[in-house]
Amino acid sequence: MNLAEFNHKIAEIRADRVRGASELARRCLLILAEAARVLPAANIVELREGLLVLVAELARTRPSMAPIQNLLRRWREGLIIDDGMELTGARRIAIDQAEALIVASRRAVADCATHAARLLGPGRTIMTHSFSSTVLDVCRLLKDEGLRLIVTESRPLGEGRQLAERLSAWNVPTVYITDAQMGLFIARADAVLVGADSVLGDGAVVNKAGTYPLALVTREQGIPFYVCCESFKWREAGEMPPELEEMAPAELGVPDWPCVTVRNVYFDITPARLVSAWIDETGVRLTAE
Amino acid sequence: MNLAEFNHKIAEIRADRVRGASELARRCLLILAEAARVLPAANIVELREGLLVLVAELARTRPSMAPIQNLLRRWREGLIIDDGMELTGARRIAIDQAEALIVASRRAVADCATHAARLLGPGRTIMTHSFSSTVLDVCRLLKDEGLRLIVTESRPLGEGRQLAERLSAWNVPTVYITDAQMGLFIARADAVLVGADSVLGDGAVVNKAGTYPLALVTREQGIPFYVCCESFKWREAGEMPPELEEMAPAELGVPDWPCVTVRNVYFDITPARLVSAWIDETGVRLTAE
Repeated sequence: MNLAEFNHKIAEIRADRVRGASELARRCLLILAEAARVLPAANIVELREGLLVLVAELARTRPSMAPIQNLLRRWREGLIIDDGMELTGARRIAIDQAEALIVASRRAVADCATHAARLLGPGRTIMTHSFSSTVLDVCRLLKDEGLRLIVTESRPLGEGRQLAERLSAWNVPTVYITDAQMGLFIARADAVLVGADSVLGDGAVVNKAGTYPLALVTREQGIPFYVCCESFKWREAGEMPPELEEMAPAELGVPDWPCVTVRNVYFDITPARLVSAWIDETGVRLTAE
Repeated sequence: MNLAEFNHKIAEIRADRVRGASELARRCLLILAEAARVLPAANIVELREGLLVLVAELARTRPSMAPIQNLLRRWREGLIIDDGMELTGARRIAIDQAEALIVASRRAVADCATHAARLLGPGRTIMTHSFSSTVLDVCRLLKDEGLRLIVTESRPLGEGRQLAERLSAWNVPTVYITDAQMGLFIARADAVLVGADSVLGDGAVVNKAGTYPLALVTREQGIPFYVCCESFKWREAGEMPPELEEMAPAELGVPDWPCVTVRNVYFDITPARLVSAWIDETGVRLTAE
């Protein structure tokens, strides 16, 4: 792979509207592993510099997605390459480190799903918003246990369609609604379960726009609101809240009216006080209240 | 107009996804006036019976829309036709009664808008949801007074587009967002102003689905939430809450997945405790709290 190809892969991460934060973080690690394999370098210093430039670029691709920054930092911090090493050996260490983190990320997501499925139990109606691969894993674990889902379409691109399609293939009875109908259908849910793109230091949740109003209607109904994501998605306490990514206005599909500004912010922030429990690979953390 | 044509007009009211409750109520009165003019009748008893059958049919067209039932009831109650009258005179009374109510309805809407514009005042940023002709009238009154709008698209059919287009033509700076972004943009609003399809006896508001979560994010931000509609939209205390109309699932534009039920309920109910003030043609009524 040459530099142009790496740049193309980075642009793909930036433009991706389909994959969730965990999957994109693993893609970043794959790109890094590939770079460690093929990046031209006369010596270890050049290799390390080339990889660190790439890490910095990858870390900037999706500011709302904590696992990208966290897994890349873990890779960087765990990389112990001595200047006296052989180049081939150093490349191997960098590749192994990326691959180990990919495995750790996958395992963390799977463990989250296991804890969430245990918390929810059989015979439940769960409402969710947008598409989370972790929530999908939870559904996979519960699909033969009388699970029912209520799925919002999640404008503008409608990630809810993807989820509804999978659930249907698993014979999970699913109700599919517009985002605007969340207040009408919440009363039929036993719990709300969403993934996250990031969790802030105080437990506030960065997730697809619409999650915050969903958390409000959920609280009004006295229904639990669960957030399920691996700890790679947590930002450190005191870290600045992330920039909330904004995508192309064209995704809303309206004309270019002269006095109208079309906004397309992808993520909103749900305050920690609206979350009943956070579920990560280590287990369930209930709210302090 | 023959019976088939009347049935066609009734079907049009039922299928209308563009016009608001007030305008459809006036259309019902127009149909009634036309019927009073042309309905074949040998005598007054036949005329009255024919018109009452039509009134009953029209009243059933849109259960979520109180002004249709209210204006038709007012017409029926105000109709004083003596069995000894001449047929032509009776027809004239029925027509005049319908036309007088159309005028009263228009005046009530205009007076609502005047009160709302006075309450809001100049230089404000107003957020709204769906398309209300009363809210549009308020915007018309304030359009040269530094008004700014935040408009939600209002899925599935996107009535917000209509509103954004009008506002743009009036040079009102407008931000257009998906329904899911309401929680992100509410903090920029000085107030929320919505119309209503009905107001229940206790002040709860039946309006386009999405109004209830909007009211919740509004309260969280400590911003006033105003409902502006003429008193023809109020249901009487103790009256049953209306059936919330559901439209064709096809409007959501998704495939027919075997295990998925697509729901398309058009209206939700915002509890009275989330409303800061109700504005009707008589003035502003603040919440008791």
